[in-house]
Amino acid sequence: MDIKKYKKESDYSYSLGAFPTIELLKTRPGEVTEVIVHSAFTDLSMIDSLCKKNNIPVSVNDKLISKLSDKENCFVIGIFKKYDDELRNDKPHIVLVNPGNMGNLGTIMRSSVGFGIKDMAIITPGADPFNPKTIRSSMGAAFRLNIKCFDSFDDYVLAYPEYEKFLFMLRAKEVLSDKTCSKDEKYSLVFGNEATGLPDDYDRYGRSVLIPETDEVDSLNITIAAGIAMFILNRPYFAK
Amino acid sequence: MDIKKYKKESDYSYSLGAFPTIELLKTRPGEVTEVIVHSAFTDLSMIDSLCKKNNIPVSVNDKLISKLSDKENCFVIGIFKKYDDELRNDKPHIVLVNPGNMGNLGTIMRSSVGFGIKDMAIITPGADPFNPKTIRSSMGAAFRLNIKCFDSFDDYVLAYPEYEKFLFMLRAKEVLSDKTCSKDEKYSLVFGNEATGLPDDYDRYGRSVLIPETDEVDSLNITIAAGIAMFILNRPYFAK
Repeated sequence: MDIKKYKKESDYSYSLGAFPTIELLKTRPGEVTEVIVHSAFTDLSMIDSLCKKNNIPVSVNDKLISKLSDKENCFVIGIFKKYDDELRNDKPHIVLVNPGNMGNLGTIMRSSVGFGIKDMAIITPGADPFNPKTIRSSMGAAFRLNIKCFDSFDDYVLAYPEYEKFLFMLRAKEVLSDKTCSKDEKYSLVFGNEATGLPDDYDRYGRSVLIPETDEVDSLNITIAAGIAMFILNRPYFAK
Repeated sequence: MDIKKYKKESDYSYSLGAFPTIELLKTRPGEVTEVIVHSAFTDLSMIDSLCKKNNIPVSVNDKLISKLSDKENCFVIGIFKKYDDELRNDKPHIVLVNPGNMGNLGTIMRSSVGFGIKDMAIITPGADPFNPKTIRSSMGAAFRLNIKCFDSFDDYVLAYPEYEKFLFMLRAKEVLSDKTCSKDEKYSLVFGNEATGLPDDYDRYGRSVLIPETDEVDSLNITIAAGIAMFILNRPYFAK
């Protein structure tokens, strides 16, 4: 197999780094076609045992590693076939409308898994959830999420009409507080693009919510806003 | 004045972009020596009026802009003298122990101003709060903070012995909840380095606190953890 630099159209992608690759092997072993390691990589035991268990070939190929990774400190790459997920219809969703930045998308994936929200809808056009940069930013949490792309927010709403939608926006009717909570686990936390936010008329879809902040900043970074919203709203469901 | 690329030792720095430069002009006009704009920049009215009011020269210099900025979409740069701040001793502090990444530092600055915590201690060595990359990540919120560097956490503790310290760490005695709150505004939220966190024995300085998360991620991104902690703990003090 001739492995090329990642493109959005590719039918495979890869995890850069040992930690994300271990996450890949633990959560999606059936999709992994091979693992490439650098000759300078010494801590092979975990990778090796996961690959043996799943009959995945491991090879040393310094040239391929430097071709695929931009960062010098990458010593392990996992190659995998892209896959399709369905979202569960009885668990909370996070919905990102046209996310612009792969680093932000990956960071939100990591928080999402951390707060027990494991189903993510992405409204396209938007940052590519399979891009190696997204996966790296997620620290491999991407592989633990069910991710599904929709062509429009209306398509998402049609698919999950009974979900209670929380729309995070600056012009909102509610302020996020400890009392903000959903009736049950069938709810969606919806965030807009980093630069533009959600359109003002999105409050028609459900409850528009503002995270209170001083008037000395324009807005919160989207990854912070999403982290706080998930922490507050999903606490009743993921408490250890 | 011959303006060079920023170095940590420089006695001046600069804001890259129109938004951070407007923040600079609004909050620290006395430190600004000049503003450089690109000939393609058309929306000059706000910059011009702020500069006139404060007798700050504005000049067009495309070559200097491309020398100082790495990003192509930078059309305005403010040059300013670095300054020294003191932290207030009756308001909450955020304390970052050896922060490693300028993007994270800037993002935490933005959240901090957003949640009304306007005094920041940085324990060195750590990311440079005056680096243009930090300032750009903060969207100019850096200029609204009082920032002071300390050589060690003990030096900080000696300076503010009466402050109640909340130490965010994975091995902690308390779990962050709505009930986690300070006696008054004299408190410090303390976060460790991105890769290493706070040393385990830091719980001797005060209350060690964990942000609850599932066991499916290693830890939260530091900017998310800090955002949630500031939102929960400072709500009683900055409510609109």
